[in-house]
Amino acid sequence: MNTISASIITIGDELLIGQVIDTNSAWMAQALNKIGIPIHRRIAVGDKWDEIWQALDQESALSTLIFITGGLGPTSDDITKPLLCKYFGGKLVLHQPTLQHVEYLFEHVFKRGLPLSERNIKQAEVPDNCTIIKNELGTAPGMLFEKNGCLFFSLPGVPHEMQGLMQNEIIPLLQQRFTLGSIEHRTLLTAGIGESMLAERLVEFEKSLPKNLSLAYLPNYGMVRLRLTLNGENATEVNATINTYFENLKALVADVMITDKDEPLEAVVGRILLEQKKTIGTAESCTGGYISHLITSIPGSSSYYEGSIISYSYDIKEKVLHVNKQTLEKYGAVSEEVVREMVQNAQEMLHTDYAIAVSGIMGPGGATPDKPVGTVWMAVSGNHKIITKKMHFRFNRQRNIQLTAANALLLLIQLMNDKN
Amino acid sequence: MNTISASIITIGDELLIGQVIDTNSAWMAQALNKIGIPIHRRIAVGDKWDEIWQALDQESALSTLIFITGGLGPTSDDITKPLLCKYFGGKLVLHQPTLQHVEYLFEHVFKRGLPLSERNIKQAEVPDNCTIIKNELGTAPGMLFEKNGCLFFSLPGVPHEMQGLMQNEIIPLLQQRFTLGSIEHRTLLTAGIGESMLAERLVEFEKSLPKNLSLAYLPNYGMVRLRLTLNGENATEVNATINTYFENLKALVADVMITDKDEPLEAVVGRILLEQKKTIGTAESCTGGYISHLITSIPGSSSYYEGSIISYSYDIKEKVLHVNKQTLEKYGAVSEEVVREMVQNAQEMLHTDYAIAVSGIMGPGGATPDKPVGTVWMAVSGNHKIITKKMHFRFNRQRNIQLTAANALLLLIQLMNDKN
Repeated sequence: MNTISASIITIGDELLIGQVIDTNSAWMAQALNKIGIPIHRRIAVGDKWDEIWQALDQESALSTLIFITGGLGPTSDDITKPLLCKYFGGKLVLHQPTLQHVEYLFEHVFKRGLPLSERNIKQAEVPDNCTIIKNELGTAPGMLFEKNGCLFFSLPGVPHEMQGLMQNEIIPLLQQRFTLGSIEHRTLLTAGIGESMLAERLVEFEKSLPKNLSLAYLPNYGMVRLRLTLNGENATEVNATINTYFENLKALVADVMITDKDEPLEAVVGRILLEQKKTIGTAESCTGGYISHLITSIPGSSSYYEGSIISYSYDIKEKVLHVNKQTLEKYGAVSEEVVREMVQNAQEMLHTDYAIAVSGIMGPGGATPDKPVGTVWMAVSGNHKIITKKMHFRFNRQRNIQLTAANALLLLIQLMNDKN
Repeated sequence: MNTISASIITIGDELLIGQVIDTNSAWMAQALNKIGIPIHRRIAVGDKWDEIWQALDQESALSTLIFITGGLGPTSDDITKPLLCKYFGGKLVLHQPTLQHVEYLFEHVFKRGLPLSERNIKQAEVPDNCTIIKNELGTAPGMLFEKNGCLFFSLPGVPHEMQGLMQNEIIPLLQQRFTLGSIEHRTLLTAGIGESMLAERLVEFEKSLPKNLSLAYLPNYGMVRLRLTLNGENATEVNATINTYFENLKALVADVMITDKDEPLEAVVGRILLEQKKTIGTAESCTGGYISHLITSIPGSSSYYEGSIISYSYDIKEKVLHVNKQTLEKYGAVSEEVVREMVQNAQEMLHTDYAIAVSGIMGPGGATPDKPVGTVWMAVSGNHKIITKKMHFRFNRQRNIQLTAANALLLLIQLMNDKN
């Protein structure tokens, strides 16, 4: 079995007061998993000397690889570099190649037109007991320290700099240095069945799983992702075994499965549109452009997404999207009649094969006695059909917007897959 | 000084393979900070018995309050409840009030129309050595264990359930039980000045700070947030002291300050629009609705946001947004001339006081020899003026979209604040 495992330490007070959400750890975990390195633990500590020191002690007792991000900037709250220097018993020295790189960045990339300050030059000082890993995209270099059989990688906290260093330098280094095992995940998404019901259906399947193959349930309001994970030495065997069980799992949930990939709903929509060579647009009210943002977050979406009319106000619904004034007045903006007209007009004005329309009350304001916060009407059109659906979400504004978008995409997928 | 501190333990393999981004910890940290409880560390561990056990041992040696989220679901990968039961030396017993609540949820909220399965009933089993904290919004109750002067709170991982439990039950309980200190943060946002330059300007200010008052730099592509944090016993004193230093800081960066609140740019835009009693709309190409999503993510935005035309394709630019065909053909969609027409037409069609338009190449595809990935033209209009700006981002699609939106909002704020 694989004995290499990793801990990720992220440094920064902003993580402990909730000012910033840590996305670096998730990215690093995925990248390391892909080359067969399991993550043991993730830990976030503040910009405090003793706490970083203690985390280094603890994590290196548990894992062979320690990844440290953050605290490498040029200001006084950035203490990672002097701390690591002391922790590993070295001293700071000016690193000429890093200095040249900092000079190059200031002259050609940042184009500040100013000479380097002492503070900028300090960015090129590094502990004399580490291996420097060049950071093409920023001034703070990556550093590799070794102690008692553990490798410690210090990386900048700026996401694209950290990602560049991992992809170009650290991943190849790890693959060269260690004989890594294989970790494979297979994920599928179901809709319209609860977690408990799904678990009942999979009782026998779970019993059939070998001990090192795990099944996880990831529920999310009416949708449940199921994930199989297998960790082993031989990549071919790991792949063959997990694929067999994944096929069994797919067969057991075929009637409720939306996709057999680990992808968001907007990627499923995109894939079907490409297969069908069809186009899409939206007319959004309460989601305020979030559905079109999701669709266009997928690379290559310009080949099937045409555009949207975000008709937030009554006026735009009537004057730009041409919803009938009588319909608006008679039924109100949050009604089946209005989303029906919205979706029809969107499909016509944007000349698309499919369209999505939503109108609702996301909160905290805007509720009426018969339409509480969370009330949403949605409509999808295409294949000479319109499907409408009313839903009611019980969450805060942000979550209501997310769930409205997800359920509208789900409704569209059902329409697109409907062969009748 | 405050001696109460907290550790947050989040449980779930999905956190260690990077499948899910942990937003719960950030929310909890903010909520606890607000009542004067500092977070010592945050740690994520997998669904593994030994690792959860070890984390409980370690964190309770460091902190007095331990918050544990996740692993309370009804499926076999959820092991938190039996583990805690054993860790604290209790046994599982059926808790009648929880059972009644589960029955109520299934009948009136989830409306499944099915009798409770054995698995659902198991949700109402709890360790006999904990205090049950009712979870109004879900089936898994919160649990409070006490050991060696530490309080351990176990909470569900579903964000709105965790938030409900914290707000309604745990925060009041903590405030009643402990004499809590005060933690205050003050954050401002600057634009157009680099982190190093800003630090040079603040050298004397940093020297003037009392030892327990910390200054943090949070840089983000051309914008830097500055945060002061002060931790103390007496809320009145803490507030008075931090406010004094914050006023000093504001005076030092007045020329580059965008806001003196910890808020996103779309909230600044919203505030100015409300003050000026003016309205806004957008015409977006490359951001695909993301700018209008940001604007409408602010509660109450319906009083100033009218709508948008997301003109992703040439056709929509020409036929719906009425950009001149000759302009499109002569200069191309990513050009100053086109965004100028886009912003004018948006303001006219949507009848708004201000408008934003963007057109660019977000990647990975779509580049041309003279327009590499990351090239963006943006325009803002209002107060009888149009400002255009060309930018070039060097990141991935997602980040390019985010930075385009942020910089377009920034350009608008500059236009809105321009008194000439």
